[in-house]
Amino acid sequence: MSSHHIVRDDQEPALIIANGEMCSQELLGQLLEWSPLVIVLDSAIERVLELGIKVDVLLGDFDRGFDSEYYKEKQYPIEIVYAPNQDKTDLEKAFDYLIEKGHKAANVIWATGRRADHTITNLTNIVAYRNQLKVVILDDHSKVFLLPNTFEKWYTANTILSLIPIGKVRGISTQNLFYSLNNEDLTIGYRTGSSNHVTTDGIVTITHTEGDLLLMECWD
Amino acid sequence: MSSHHIVRDDQEPALIIANGEMCSQELLGQLLEWSPLVIVLDSAIERVLELGIKVDVLLGDFDRGFDSEYYKEKQYPIEIVYAPNQDKTDLEKAFDYLIEKGHKAANVIWATGRRADHTITNLTNIVAYRNQLKVVILDDHSKVFLLPNTFEKWYTANTILSLIPIGKVRGISTQNLFYSLNNEDLTIGYRTGSSNHVTTDGIVTITHTEGDLLLMECWD
Repeated sequence: MSSHHIVRDDQEPALIIANGEMCSQELLGQLLEWSPLVIVLDSAIERVLELGIKVDVLLGDFDRGFDSEYYKEKQYPIEIVYAPNQDKTDLEKAFDYLIEKGHKAANVIWATGRRADHTITNLTNIVAYRNQLKVVILDDHSKVFLLPNTFEKWYTANTILSLIPIGKVRGISTQNLFYSLNNEDLTIGYRTGSSNHVTTDGIVTITHTEGDLLLMECWD
Repeated sequence: MSSHHIVRDDQEPALIIANGEMCSQELLGQLLEWSPLVIVLDSAIERVLELGIKVDVLLGDFDRGFDSEYYKEKQYPIEIVYAPNQDKTDLEKAFDYLIEKGHKAANVIWATGRRADHTITNLTNIVAYRNQLKVVILDDHSKVFLLPNTFEKWYTANTILSLIPIGKVRGISTQNLFYSLNNEDLTIGYRTGSSNHVTTDGIVTITHTEGDLLLMECWD
């Protein structure tokens, strides 16, 4: 589980373990293997330690009778970051920490499931970091990231791709998606591009002119 | 599990069982007891039948080799609603079905968890139905519904309440919330009111002038 310590390349994304539903051991293992830095959010530390994962940073407001000495001893060396700012979520504070340390990218797990308020806030608040940190949220059924204005990637036919506008997104066009969009708008709550899929093996192109558009690669 | 058949009062909310993560048996049982009509979405029927629940309506596009005769026999009498429209989600089709039948309210379970695209679309698309159907989405950690422009309800102190704007919401003011808002705006992806809580036992008031604001009552 601590094999991530073999590779310490800060060009690889950091791994943030949030406090939602746990993911599969397989996904966790894949991500740990390449993560130069593992950050755990607040009380998730209890579940993380049970899995025997080596943690580099523990971050949170620790508002529930938290004993940092206990974790310092258990996980030496570990950095404990006390982040009491109540205007931000723990996940946003972790993004801020990584940006300050010069990181360029982060994978996030355990950010979905359990509380619906945490899930929707975690999924949508990545858009505010679009120019500072490349964020990918992963769970056992989903891989979520923010699209640049022009996005191109090779996919196999029938891959499920959902276009989720965070707010209003204008001028969306797609190539090689089954339900194609041609300079159209999507608006959260009213018209989204959920459950589209790739037509044929090959490059999918998605462009938009304005707004924050998430791509979700999903599977049942 | 079929005790909901004792009470057949169409003034009670219908129950929609979607295709996400299952909820606790306790929550399921509470909702079934008062639901005059139980609608199951598409392939969730397999998990529902394993639980021995009596289903009134099965709705979906049944695009994966579905045999309606099998379920007609298993659940007689059951209405099978074939809804192939690919511009709407199965949950939206269920809302449309209920509105057409004259229902005024629906509780929705199994609408969160698993695929992130389904979760965010299910949680947010209820806003488009604001004038037609009173929708509450429930899971083991959350109760989610759309706020009218003026909302008042009695809560116990420390109840977690999250204000989640679907798009931009203007002119929000609160009373008896710990982080109070005074004619402020919230915008999804940039500034939400997640993880607020009730200050003292008593009435909480939340008003807003414009936009679609979800309230999420959540617990860990």
